[in-house]
Order: sequence, then C-alpha cells, then structure tokens
Amino acid sequence: MAQRHLDPTDPAATGPVPADALAAYLRAQATEFLRALRLHRETGGGAAGATAESVDAARALRRSARRISGSLHTFRPLLEETWAEELRPELAWVSGTLAREHAYQDRLERLLRALQRLSPQTATGGDAVTARRGAPAVALPAPALPDRGTSTGTGNLTVGAAKAGALLDRQLTLARTRAHSTALQALGSARFHAVADKVAVLASDVPLTPAARTTDLREPARAAEERLTDAVAALPLVTAGSPYNAAALAAGLSPDPSAHPQDAPWHQVRLLLRLHRYAREVLHGAGEAPMDVRLPAAGRALDRHRDASEAAAAAAAAARTPRIAPATAYALGVLHADQRHEVEAARFAFQQAWLKQPVGAGRGGGDPW
Amino acid sequence: MAQRHLDPTDPAATGPVPADALAAYLRAQATEFLRALRLHRETGGGAAGATAESVDAARALRRSARRISGSLHTFRPLLEETWAEELRPELAWVSGTLAREHAYQDRLERLLRALQRLSPQTATGGDAVTARRGAPAVALPAPALPDRGTSTGTGNLTVGAAKAGALLDRQLTLARTRAHSTALQALGSARFHAVADKVAVLASDVPLTPAARTTDLREPARAAEERLTDAVAALPLVTAGSPYNAAALAAGLSPDPSAHPQDAPWHQVRLLLRLHRYAREVLHGAGEAPMDVRLPAAGRALDRHRDASEAAAAAAAAARTPRIAPATAYALGVLHADQRHEVEAARFAFQQAWLKQPVGAGRGGGDPW
Repeated sequence: MAQRHLDPTDPAATGPVPADALAAYLRAQATEFLRALRLHRETGGGAAGATAESVDAARALRRSARRISGSLHTFRPLLEETWAEELRPELAWVSGTLAREHAYQDRLERLLRALQRLSPQTATGGDAVTARRGAPAVALPAPALPDRGTSTGTGNLTVGAAKAGALLDRQLTLARTRAHSTALQALGSARFHAVADKVAVLASDVPLTPAARTTDLREPARAAEERLTDAVAALPLVTAGSPYNAAALAAGLSPDPSAHPQDAPWHQVRLLLRLHRYAREVLHGAGEAPMDVRLPAAGRALDRHRDASEAAAAAAAAARTPRIAPATAYALGVLHADQRHEVEAARFAFQQAWLKQPVGAGRGGGDPW
Repeated sequence: MAQRHLDPTDPAATGPVPADALAAYLRAQATEFLRALRLHRETGGGAAGATAESVDAARALRRSARRISGSLHTFRPLLEETWAEELRPELAWVSGTLAREHAYQDRLERLLRALQRLSPQTATGGDAVTARRGAPAVALPAPALPDRGTSTGTGNLTVGAAKAGALLDRQLTLARTRAHSTALQALGSARFHAVADKVAVLASDVPLTPAARTTDLREPARAAEERLTDAVAALPLVTAGSPYNAAALAAGLSPDPSAHPQDAPWHQVRLLLRLHRYAREVLHGAGEAPMDVRLPAAGRALDRHRDASEAAAAAAAAARTPRIAPATAYALGVLHADQRHEVEAARFAFQQAWLKQPVGAGRGGGDPW
C-alpha cells in the first residue's frame, strides 16, 4: 500500500515541500513516457489498423507528455530556463499531434450517438457509410399533414438524419485519416526523436536551478491554483447554475457559428484546472494522497464542454457543404443546437461540481482545496 | 374589499357547499360573456384591424366561455343533462375558434423572438417581411474556415435565419389571416347567435337538476382534482426534474417531428389543471379566496409547454416547404431544437412549481390543495 503523506497543501503542515518531489515526479513521468513509446512501437502504433493496446499506449504517451509540459510551466522558476523553454512547446506538439486523431474519432462517435438519439431509425457507424453510398439526393415534399404512414424510416427527416450522419462520417473520417498520417509522420520525424532523447535524459537527470534547493514547491503550486480560481471567478456561474438559461445557443445562428467566443473562458479554465491537478500530483506524490473530490467531476464537465462545443462546430461546418439537401441541413441544424445544449448542460454540471464542499474545507477553512 | 370565506375545500369546514354557489358562478360568467361580446362588437372586433380593446374583449369572451364550458363538465350531475350536453361543445367551438387567430400570432412572435436571440442581426416582424421580399436565394459557400470577416450580417447562416423568419412570417401570417376570417364568420353565424341566446338565458336562469339541491359541490370538485392528480402522477416528473435530461428532443428527427407523442400527457394535464382551477373558483367565489400558489406557476409552465411544442412543430413544418435553401432549413432545424428545449425547460418549471409546498399543507395535511 502507498505510503500516507500529510497533506502538503495544508497550511498547518510543517516545513516547505522540497524540489526533490518535483524531480521525482518529472523522472517518473519521463519513464512513463518512454515506456508508453516503447509499447506504442511494439503494438504496431504506426500501422493503419491501430490495436486497442497501441491506442492505450498513445494515450499514455500524451498523458505523460502533458504532465511533464504542465509541470515545466507551473514550476518554471525551479528549472533550468533554456532547457524548459525548449522542451515545453515540443511536448505540447507531441501531445497535440497525437490527440487530434482520437479527437476526430470521438467527435464522430458523439455526433452519431446524438443522431441515433434524435432519430432512432438512423443508421450509424458502418451503416452510415452504407447510407452515404446508397442514398440518392431526396427532395423535400410539399408541406402537408404529418405522414403518419412513414414510420418505416423513409420519412424525409429521417433521410435527412441518415444523410447528415453519412456526411459527418465522411468529413470526420477524412480528417481523422489525415490526422493519423500526420501523427505517423511526426512519430518518425527527427523532431520527435530529439524530444524523446531529451525525455530520456530527464528520466535520470532533472536540471534544477541552484535556487530550487531553497524553494518551497507550494509557492508555484499555489500560484497555479490562484490562476484557476481567478479564471473560475470570472465565469458566468450564476447563469450556468440556472437550468435552461439558453445561454449556450445565444447567437447560435450568427455569421460565424463555429467560433463561440463565449466558450473560450471555459476552455481556458479546463487547461488551468489540468495544470492545478498536475501541480497537486507533484505535491502529493502521484495518486497517493486523497484528491479534492470536486476536481475529477469538474474536469469531466469541462471535457464534455469542450467535446460538445467542437461537435456543434463540426455540425455547423458540415452544413456549409455545397449542394446538400435541405433535409440534411435541417438535421445538421437540429444536431448543432442539440450539442450547444450539451455545452450548456456541461456548464451546469461544472457549476454543480464546483460548488460542492471541497474535501477538508470544513476543518481548516483557510485552504479551499 | 371582498368578503372573506372559510376555505370550502377544508375538510374541517362545516356543512356541504350548496348548488347555489355553482348557479351564482355560472350566472356571473354568462354575464361576463355577454359584456365581452357587446364590447367586442362596439370596439370593431369584426374589422380587419383589431384594436387592443377588441383583442381584450375577445380574450374575455374566450375566458368566460371556457369557464362555463368547464363548469358544465365538472358539475354535470347537478345540471340539466340535455341542455348542458348541447351547450358545452358549442362553447368549446366559440373559444377554440376565437383562440386560433391569437395562437398563430403568439406562435409567430415566439419564433421571431427565438430567431432574434439565435441571430441578433436577424430582422424580425415587419423587417422580416422586407427580408422575405428582398432576399434572393443564396447558395451555401464551400466548407471553409469560419469567415471572420462576415460579421456585418451577410454571413449565410444569418441569411438563413432571416429567410427562416420570413418564411415563418409568411406561413403563420397566412394561417392567422384565415383564422381571423373564420372567427369573423363564426361570430356572424346563426350557430353563434344560438350560443349567445343560450348564454343570455343562463345569465338569469341556471337549469339545476332537482338532485342538485341536496348535492355537495365539493364532491364533483374533488373528482376533478383527483383526475388532475392522477394525470400528474403519470407524468415523468423525475426525468423532468433532472435538468438537461434531453428527453424533449429525443426522436426529434423521427419521420413525424410535428407530432411528439410524449407531449400529449402534458397537454392533458394542462386541461385538467384548468378544470380544477375553475372548480376551485366555483367553490371559493371567483377571486375572493386565497388560491394554491402552485396553480398559477404550474399553469404558466404548461402554457409555455404547449406554446413551445406548437412553435417547434411550426418550425419543422416550415422546413418541409419545397425548394427552400439549405441555410434556411439549417436555421429552422436550430429553431426547432431550440423550441424543443423550451418544452423541456417548461417541464422542469412545472416539476419545480408542483413540488413546492402547497398553501396550508403544513396545517391540516389532509387536503393537498
């Protein structure tokens, strides 16, 4: 069983947290990065048909790359400046490049699931591809009383849903395939090998500054926490906590529906929450200490917010495809609005998670974490 | 100030409520019907350009027609059977015919308000008509990065919103005009004069049955209340009380999107709530006694539910217009989903209103009203 620590963020805890904890964390994450990279290569991560193992390996690779990169940012006063400033963007490039393929895949699955919910007869996944190849362009019939005889799936709005699914499938599969090629090229590039070499060195030798020996890790960790709480304080949480506020779809038919400026502060909080979480991992020893129960739920809500926001944008982008049938455009409009309501639901979930009493808040009261 | 009554629905109250209260209520509503009818004629209710006074008069006419009709239903064992069974459907015809014109007007305003919210640059109302006449069919451009330069209102989705608004304006204005003509014809018809004559008799002479003299009005009123509570108990209130349950848009792209079978039980509860409210008015003397505070809020939520449901259906119906541009269809899809979320929001509001502690529930406990 893991050794129990006193909570290092507890103001009542005695003594500073030394830089050794950061060095140990970075070494462990670098080792994990190398392990995942080896596993990724062994499981044929480069091949077109990625296995479940290679997908897991790629995920582990991104996970450690994000943690190293995030820690270099939060604890930069303790680390050799030139080295950290060179490595950090390279790690962000690695995790970003690897993430893209899976993001397109997840986005497609989210949108097809939503279409399935909106139109239970709609073919999804592989069937959607069939529908795409087989379905001819269908004109909308004249307005009339509802065709109550068309529940066999030939109703034109169901056709619209099927065609919308096929269109999204085509567009997002193409994007995913391109992202896969880009990731393959990246993993074989001299640029990536240089990153891997640096991480290999990091696994044994962390370049701390001389000043790091006398610095308390809690200071930069607290600064990361403050950046998060400041950003959360600027969110419209009162609105978000009022169900069905209809804020997420406001201006949803504006000229540029794929860029919802209102989403940006939430995306920013998502990144700051992640940095805060990694800083806590550094302090606590990864996974050993009890975490603030709010963080996982809040993080999941913000992930869902990001995913729904991007799925809504993908539906709007698909609606700008030339020569689509009105029924397809209609289905994409419904789908876009559905995902914008998912955005709103995610904000509500974040607000609910955030306002939950944090662990230990009732005891000390000084530290909201 | 109105005379204070003891609460006649209070089980602790002594003695039955006699049929005189029903007779007084029906006489008062009949008098109000005749007053509103006279006012409607004096204010030119028949003319094409209805004044605010004639609109108010028509509303008062419908209001009293509904109350007489509802009371004939709830208290039918106390009233002469043939007379009541003849008058009731005729009053329903009057209120239904008069309601239709205003319903189309309200539906159009609701949809144009929603479009305004979804696309702040969209012209609405009179401007939408201009847009309808002026805007040429605009093809969707190729998919591309968002056109960040198009915030001047020429973005094609804004065009889609404007054209959707113009289409709805055209369709619902036409429907309203037809409903207006139908209402005019109805008010001038022999059928209506026969109804008015019967109401004139009712204003002085209520045909109670001999048995009515010994019947307690609270019995039929309680039966109406039980029909309401049974219908509410069958509603999916647990789902409705969970925000963002996404139930209202489920199967929203099914072949027949204008008929949401899931809405029917809510519409039924709306009617039963109204009958219960009128029965309470009979018992309490209209407007004199304190009402259950839940009823107005619950009723408003169900009105909103009905309005949003019908607005969503109107958007879906407009999307079946032949030869509309994809951008218009997309906007109508967003609008449909928006109104279905309004449906869901209304159910949530009803659930919240319903679960509020009813007035006096803490005192006696026997009567939930």
